[in-house]
Amino acid sequence: MARTVLKFGGTSVADLDRISHVADVVAARARDGGGLAVVVSAMSGETNKLVGYAQEAAGEGVTGAAFNDEYDVVVSSGEQVTSGLLALALRKRGLKARSWLGWQLALKTTNTHGSARITGFQGEGFAASVDAGEIAVIAGFQGVTDEARVATLGRGGSDTSAVAVAAALEAKSCDIYTDVDGVYTTDPRIVSKAQRIPAISYEEMLEMASLGAKVLQTRSVELAMNHRVPIRVLSSFHEPGSDMDNVGTLVCDEEHIVEKQVVSGIAYSRDEAKVTLFGVADTPGMASRIFSLLAAAKVNVDMIVQANARGPDRANMVFTCTDRDSRLAEEALHQAQAELGYEAIEVKTDVAKVSIIGVGMKSHTGVAETMFRALYEKGINIDVISTSEIKISILIEAAYTELAVRALHTAFDLDAD
Amino acid sequence: MARTVLKFGGTSVADLDRISHVADVVAARARDGGGLAVVVSAMSGETNKLVGYAQEAAGEGVTGAAFNDEYDVVVSSGEQVTSGLLALALRKRGLKARSWLGWQLALKTTNTHGSARITGFQGEGFAASVDAGEIAVIAGFQGVTDEARVATLGRGGSDTSAVAVAAALEAKSCDIYTDVDGVYTTDPRIVSKAQRIPAISYEEMLEMASLGAKVLQTRSVELAMNHRVPIRVLSSFHEPGSDMDNVGTLVCDEEHIVEKQVVSGIAYSRDEAKVTLFGVADTPGMASRIFSLLAAAKVNVDMIVQANARGPDRANMVFTCTDRDSRLAEEALHQAQAELGYEAIEVKTDVAKVSIIGVGMKSHTGVAETMFRALYEKGINIDVISTSEIKISILIEAAYTELAVRALHTAFDLDAD
Repeated sequence: MARTVLKFGGTSVADLDRISHVADVVAARARDGGGLAVVVSAMSGETNKLVGYAQEAAGEGVTGAAFNDEYDVVVSSGEQVTSGLLALALRKRGLKARSWLGWQLALKTTNTHGSARITGFQGEGFAASVDAGEIAVIAGFQGVTDEARVATLGRGGSDTSAVAVAAALEAKSCDIYTDVDGVYTTDPRIVSKAQRIPAISYEEMLEMASLGAKVLQTRSVELAMNHRVPIRVLSSFHEPGSDMDNVGTLVCDEEHIVEKQVVSGIAYSRDEAKVTLFGVADTPGMASRIFSLLAAAKVNVDMIVQANARGPDRANMVFTCTDRDSRLAEEALHQAQAELGYEAIEVKTDVAKVSIIGVGMKSHTGVAETMFRALYEKGINIDVISTSEIKISILIEAAYTELAVRALHTAFDLDAD
Repeated sequence: MARTVLKFGGTSVADLDRISHVADVVAARARDGGGLAVVVSAMSGETNKLVGYAQEAAGEGVTGAAFNDEYDVVVSSGEQVTSGLLALALRKRGLKARSWLGWQLALKTTNTHGSARITGFQGEGFAASVDAGEIAVIAGFQGVTDEARVATLGRGGSDTSAVAVAAALEAKSCDIYTDVDGVYTTDPRIVSKAQRIPAISYEEMLEMASLGAKVLQTRSVELAMNHRVPIRVLSSFHEPGSDMDNVGTLVCDEEHIVEKQVVSGIAYSRDEAKVTLFGVADTPGMASRIFSLLAAAKVNVDMIVQANARGPDRANMVFTCTDRDSRLAEEALHQAQAELGYEAIEVKTDVAKVSIIGVGMKSHTGVAETMFRALYEKGINIDVISTSEIKISILIEAAYTELAVRALHTAFDLDAD
């Protein structure tokens, strides 16, 4: 039997009116036949309220593992409420439906509470129930550890729940209903001529997600890629049953995409910091020592550049990380200044990263040249460059972010007519 | 190891300030040593909000079993939140603590969702955790069915959760912290001279609870009686550690009560209706037919009186039930008028039931006479009388309720000095 997984995020189930609308959308989908599982988030605002409660109850002294397990108990209640309410709203429409909580499925996770990873799925009775025509309404964002405790998957984790359920059900599609009608070539708030992308490969979507396009949680895309689950990003604000107009964006294998663009999208992130170590001794093993120190301090390093400094045996070491991590990095490096023997440290946070992404780069030449020329023509100075097979990222002054994104959007022919 | 169960109701955990206060109370109790389990209700107002959500989502068409299972999923989230928050607040105070949900314990119940009964307790790892000094913070009001679904125990069910946990742990005491400082001889809002009862037997407490004194859920008292679990009713509004002043009321075996009163308390209920069937044929089997009809209509009949009517082969049948049930009764009896052949039906709802309760009645004579004389002296007319071994209930005009309760409180020497 063909099975489909639908997922509705927090703004789609914000209140009882929106839940009622979602029930209409699901009811329209149910008329297509086949088994349906629906993954829901907490009503928007609810999660933040519960997070606030947990933080206030714990105070500042209870953190990390001593906080996260009970945080998960408190916060996961939000999705539990939505799943019960949507099941009732579906029954009101004459449909068979029931809620499933993480421990009932059971969606097994690691015990890294607060940001657990899915390790398995034991839902045998679950698939039978779906095939029998009972719509499964699943509390997203939550699973259960081997110790039979509730674990949550981190912010945006309901996307990952949905993909995991879709993989377990061998669903033909995982349809992520959200408050936008698809994935765009870039942020429409910055570029008014941004266009919806009809189809994008998993690899490109992964880069888009990790580089700041917040439509899907990165891990959900990884999981979908590993299990070859096609994802559709759709608008939950369309009229129910009007799916002819609600085509959204298909995230799938590259080989299923007919019209490949050289560059599919432009992503940007302002949560960046550039850390420079001046006058590092240019000796073997120095880079290794610096970055193992940063790893120990839990700093997630992104770009790395090493450049010659004034002296013959001294170099400048430059790396980027998030704004928050830069504070950890500065502290760790300060403490190790004597050991590392560098001359000075500088942290700049008024920087932004802009990236162009496209699987077409693999087979096209001149992409970097087009990018750099477009930026040069606008007088934008490039600070750091980093590349992968399907993306080129640059670090620039934060004030030029919008200008750079717009220039690149035009340069790669992404502007809508 | 000596184990104790504490229970805090909705007003005791109404907000984060109150939860913080409860954590202080529990911390003070923890200094006494021994294993501690704490059962909590939802933050007050939360349950009503969730019930409202569920009703709105379901609409009027989804009722009964089609409503109750998902209602349980939605509503039980309230206790889940409190259990996580209190565990965090205890950790903030340097104590070891963790939350336990109904399915984790596992507190097994029937699948009569919305008002499930406890059928068992499988908490093996649970007792070991309590004995190891980790305070168990238990989400009250909830259990799990054989089908692995969440079930709630009905309003006030957290009391029953607490007693069930106390029985399973063979706890030396189940301390119910509430917004009053014990069980009173009668409602202090009506009788200013009402006194706290130092000790009361299970049997008396059962009568008090079922007759309208809302301190404890009736089922929790039944369960405590069956398992010989001593209950203490205490105030949660006392300063932590001041338990010398916070003695409350002990609910225990009759044989452990030293100073036995003839009458321990006066209860009343205004949620009463008197239904009279005039001119019922006085033939064998008629009473049986009437009351099996009422049972089928789910009417919970309380008092029953049959009296001769005008004619020789006709009788009037009188019974009482709750206001709500009287509407079901009237409808069912109307539909069966032809079959039953009675002449007329009358439903009076401006009636109240007043009861005197005391195990001392078993060995004292003249109790009924004292009761009737006290009411006669105030000019109160008794409509229906019903007695058991340890209580006498009367039905009177509702307007006389306060007067009757005060007169009886004085007549049985219950007034405080």
